[in-house]
Amino acid sequence: MKDKAETLTAIGHKIQILREGMGLSQEKLAERANVHRTYIGTVERGETNLTVLNLYKIAKALNVKPSDILV
Amino acid sequence: MKDKAETLTAIGHKIQILREGMGLSQEKLAERANVHRTYIGTVERGETNLTVLNLYKIAKALNVKPSDILV
Repeated sequence: MKDKAETLTAIGHKIQILREGMGLSQEKLAERANVHRTYIGTVERGETNLTVLNLYKIAKALNVKPSDILV
Repeated sequence: MKDKAETLTAIGHKIQILREGMGLSQEKLAERANVHRTYIGTVERGETNLTVLNLYKIAKALNVKPSDILV
């Protein structure tokens, strides 16, 4: 495993790329994933050690498999 | 996404299968993954919404990719 912060940053970056590819704002993705409005920002910056269930919610909102978000 | 409890139970079951395939006790896996001794049991029973970093630690201890544990 990479350094923890590096892992979370890489996951967050992947989510950002996917989100931007769909033309969604962070707020819109949060709404689709049913998570708090500011949560996506903290995840994308690698500040949140997200849970598996939130990973699944975000993946579903991005139309990808949860494993597609892992690095 | 499946029902939340169902998702966590399925992930836990997958970890259990991989662990038993390696002939490891829950305690031994916990030691290898550097998590608390009782943590693996709660994960395998689907009681814990594990974090992504713990998913990575457990995957590493099982010699699989984190995505191999997702369902």
